Amino acid sequence: MKLVTFRTADREGVGRVDDDGTTVRDLAGVVGDRSMLAIIADWERLGPAIADAGDLPVVDGARLRAPIPEPRRDLFAVGKNYREHVAEFGRSGYDTPQRSEDLPDKPIVFSKATTSVTGPYDDVESHPEVTSELDYEAELAVIIGRGGRGITREQAMQHVWGYTIVDDVTARDVQRDHKQWLLGKSLDTHAPMGPWAVSADEIGDLAVLEVSCTVNGEPRQKAPVADLIFDVPELIRVLSAGMTLLPGDVIATGTPAGVGIGFDPPRFLQPGDVVECAITGLGALRNTIR
Amino acid sequence: MKLVTFRTADREGVGRVDDDGTTVRDLAGVVGDRSMLAIIADWERLGPAIADAGDLPVVDGARLRAPIPEPRRDLFAVGKNYREHVAEFGRSGYDTPQRSEDLPDKPIVFSKATTSVTGPYDDVESHPEVTSELDYEAELAVIIGRGGRGITREQAMQHVWGYTIVDDVTARDVQRDHKQWLLGKSLDTHAPMGPWAVSADEIGDLAVLEVSCTVNGEPRQKAPVADLIFDVPELIRVLSAGMTLLPGDVIATGTPAGVGIGFDPPRFLQPGDVVECAITGLGALRNTIR
Repeated sequence: MKLVTFRTADREGVGRVDDDGTTVRDLAGVVGDRSMLAIIADWERLGPAIADAGDLPVVDGARLRAPIPEPRRDLFAVGKNYREHVAEFGRSGYDTPQRSEDLPDKPIVFSKATTSVTGPYDDVESHPEVTSELDYEAELAVIIGRGGRGITREQAMQHVWGYTIVDDVTARDVQRDHKQWLLGKSLDTHAPMGPWAVSADEIGDLAVLEVSCTVNGEPRQKAPVADLIFDVPELIRVLSAGMTLLPGDVIATGTPAGVGIGFDPPRFLQPGDVVECAITGLGALRNTIR
Repeated sequence: MKLVTFRTADREGVGRVDDDGTTVRDLAGVVGDRSMLAIIADWERLGPAIADAGDLPVVDGARLRAPIPEPRRDLFAVGKNYREHVAEFGRSGYDTPQRSEDLPDKPIVFSKATTSVTGPYDDVESHPEVTSELDYEAELAVIIGRGGRGITREQAMQHVWGYTIVDDVTARDVQRDHKQWLLGKSLDTHAPMGPWAVSADEIGDLAVLEVSCTVNGEPRQKAPVADLIFDVPELIRVLSAGMTLLPGDVIATGTPAGVGIGFDPPRFLQPGDVVECAITGLGALRNTIR
């Protein structure tokens, strides 16, 4: 199922999207005024109810927010998790520590503040007072269903509720200058998310999904999820080893080669640029830099 | 005022602590079942009501939780923010990037996951399956009252609700091996917080507060807040430059010299060790490693 958080002139709600990818149907009759987070936390009961719901009313004028517009905590995100991106990042001189084209031997995990989350078609602020080096990063994001700690590789996929897309927008100068990446990854509107939260049962083999990104229609990134250095079960194992994962946690799994700093000279985003991030079966984000 | 989140056999509530530092008085009659976060968000109205409350009933058998036991998002934390600690961290070889005893020219900001928060007198888990290099970091933590973005140095203190203590417990091997610090800073129970949330009006000149830490009664850390490289107004300015701060946000401001890796050989925490972190006027955390 493809679920969305939508807003109309007078309310906010959660809906189900038809196979056409655009018709939003109102789930209020099934889930009441629960948020996406509350639905995911109660999925064993509500999932079947949503699946069995008959004819649901169409929502007119629904504007999509991020599927989880107000996460219960910061998004987890993974750095340098595609081989060719490791190489381009190392060459760019923007990496901290130093220039390194070595593949990481353990996942590099940081966070994006909750306030960076924005909708799938919303504008992304350029923050000219803070950065002049704005970059895009299309990423597969995992949404945790059942929480837990000490989750093994073998159990990991049972803890996945589903998937969405995150553009891990990055202020490269801020990322570099502050050493730890949080601030450079957390400017307001720098985590476009969506357009849908897609339940895991709709996605078959993750490895064959293709992550891609275009800027003003020009192809920039394109790679299969199979190219991940640390795959989804490994990320869940490592993150949960000593830190309890919670229902609704979002893990952005890393971005493939082709980001702006992969070019020489770098190609940073400018106001007016349109960034589209797409993943097979998960739809596409489309955000204009403002 | 010194506020606490407490638990008794049958409920959780918010209380006010008398000047003796131990008597907890029930605020339910004033704030209802609001959490500390809700009270801070509505402080302009509730602060005076709490101040004016007359004789409040004493809570028997109150066990203190962290004042904000379930933060609305990850704690912000600052690395290498005391000169002598920068030097000891640089010498230790545990820093990422590389060994560097240079003072940072911009604040190093990372996060501690919400699930790392634990109570002021709770046990700290040693996580032997994940780390063998457990360390303490006593820190002054700022609690944001009024949120905002683009806050200037001059306005900054008006956005501070108050203060508490955070022990920024760190798994040094995890911190080093994963390059970005989130995982090494976020193991469950690795952010003891409290014992109280102290409103800013009770604290005069921040600079003269002394941050200290003992392990099994042996002095380890001791420094005035005046030694901060980036002071509280500067941290609020930098964090809020492009990222909206929210009421209830917690910023752990960094730790002084004297941590375990400051010794040669390093002195890591072991099960049974008792860590006490104290700050003038803010009380003390006392946690046993389990």
